[in-house]
Amino acid sequence: MIKIGIIAVSDRAYAGVYEDLSGKAIVSTLNDYLISEWKEIYKIVPDEQDIIEKIIIELVDKDKCCLVVTTGGTGPAKRDVTPEATEAVCDRMMPGFGELMRAESLKFVPTAILSRQTAGLRGRSLIINLPGKPKSIRECLDAVFPAVPYCIDLMDGPCLECNEAVMKPFRPKK
Amino acid sequence: MIKIGIIAVSDRAYAGVYEDLSGKAIVSTLNDYLISEWKEIYKIVPDEQDIIEKIIIELVDKDKCCLVVTTGGTGPAKRDVTPEATEAVCDRMMPGFGELMRAESLKFVPTAILSRQTAGLRGRSLIINLPGKPKSIRECLDAVFPAVPYCIDLMDGPCLECNEAVMKPFRPKK
Amino acid sequence: MIKIGIIAVSDRAYAGVYEDLSGKAIVSTLNDYLISEWKEIYKIVPDEQDIIEKIIIELVDKDKCCLVVTTGGTGPAKRDVTPEATEAVCDRMMPGFGELMRAESLKFVPTAILSRQTAGLRGRSLIINLPGKPKSIRECLDAVFPAVPYCIDLMDGPCLECNEAVMKPFRPKK
Repeated sequence: MIKIGIIAVSDRAYAGVYEDLSGKAIVSTLNDYLISEWKEIYKIVPDEQDIIEKIIIELVDKDKCCLVVTTGGTGPAKRDVTPEATEAVCDRMMPGFGELMRAESLKFVPTAILSRQTAGLRGRSLIINLPGKPKSIRECLDAVFPAVPYCIDLMDGPCLECNEAVMKPFRPKK
Repeated sequence: MIKIGIIAVSDRAYAGVYEDLSGKAIVSTLNDYLISEWKEIYKIVPDEQDIIEKIIIELVDKDKCCLVVTTGGTGPAKRDVTPEATEAVCDRMMPGFGELMRAESLKFVPTAILSRQTAGLRGRSLIINLPGKPKSIRECLDAVFPAVPYCIDLMDGPCLECNEAVMKPFRPKK
Repeated sequence: MIKIGIIAVSDRAYAGVYEDLSGKAIVSTLNDYLISEWKEIYKIVPDEQDIIEKIIIELVDKDKCCLVVTTGGTGPAKRDVTPEATEAVCDRMMPGFGELMRAESLKFVPTAILSRQTAGLRGRSLIINLPGKPKSIRECLDAVFPAVPYCIDLMDGPCLECNEAVMKPFRPKK
């Protein structure tokens, strides 16, 4: 069974001040992409580095999610610490994800460079930070997701099959 | 009162072997951009990591500069340590600035990839490394500055108003 | 005498399961580029971080290679640790190399973002990670090599002269 962790990082969503639309946008985008059966494990956490770290570790080590996607906490505001939490729990970093997402967002807004989002590997799992705004989530996932199924293949994870009319993953021929 | 720190990092300018034109180019560019009243705090330091760190800390913690811009010391020469000093004193890094500045400079020279410049946050201040050559300073500031006022807004800093005929900052609508 | 270290990082090539074509592709590409006389020091090592580190250190500190180029071990597979070994032995990092190589490879395959390759400096030597696939090696070297001779100039290394019909290095006029 394919398990994917989704972490909405937001003090206000955590406190119930507003509904988390970003985590839901990730779930809905992944439902559009994937034809493989998958199960979401969905968490809302405050902008606290130690809590974000704890939840990523739990989703990877205990729940065996092959992919963990975060939303929020990647900007320059004082409470934004999602990239720091991600880096702290990853064994190895994947700088290409952040570079591509910023380059894509830069086509829309010059403030894309303020996004500090990154990606990395913990054991056999891929962790990707997405921005907090629902609109930017789809843009960013459309940009990086074509590489995700092969990344998980390379870590001997489950095979993610996509609806190729919507999302065409790339797997190089051996 | 908006305070901006400008640090020219250069052994030779520090020793008085030549005049610092790069720091002056930053002041003059910021004067072109900004219509808000602002005060420069301008330092010339040698290529010594501990001195660069000390001056950045002083400009941020004591002088309360919302923005500190360095020039010089970002290449591969033995004495070039400005990015290391910057990273050492920042709480959180902003990789998008270096990525965009290198991508911009790459349109002019293939040696743009030799520039190791970065940016980061210390408390509520943004620190940006610029290259040492006066000509490249304007190119780089033109590329990244549209995102700077909003970055400082997000850290609850002062509102930087620009002469929009010259520099059009981007502030997303809430 | 110009010495260049070439490290093929591959468990299987090291075990003799297959021939190392990637290291050979680097040698052949550098022979195409360079008209300066140069000597290769060519090693095949397994995907073990401490061994890769040891060999880089030896090539730089003992053999005085001005340039060390690795191939392999830059992806997300469990055994891929070449970037970690590189970062561990470098004094200062050169993020622009990885950024440009990924941007170039991205023109061909969306999985380019899975490459974690980096570059850095140890003393007066430049260390560059290249991907493992022979075809991608030429693409990546074509992209970054125009900046390499000037990088080595800036570190007071030997002057690399190129066959400009094939590789046109860029050296800014003083």
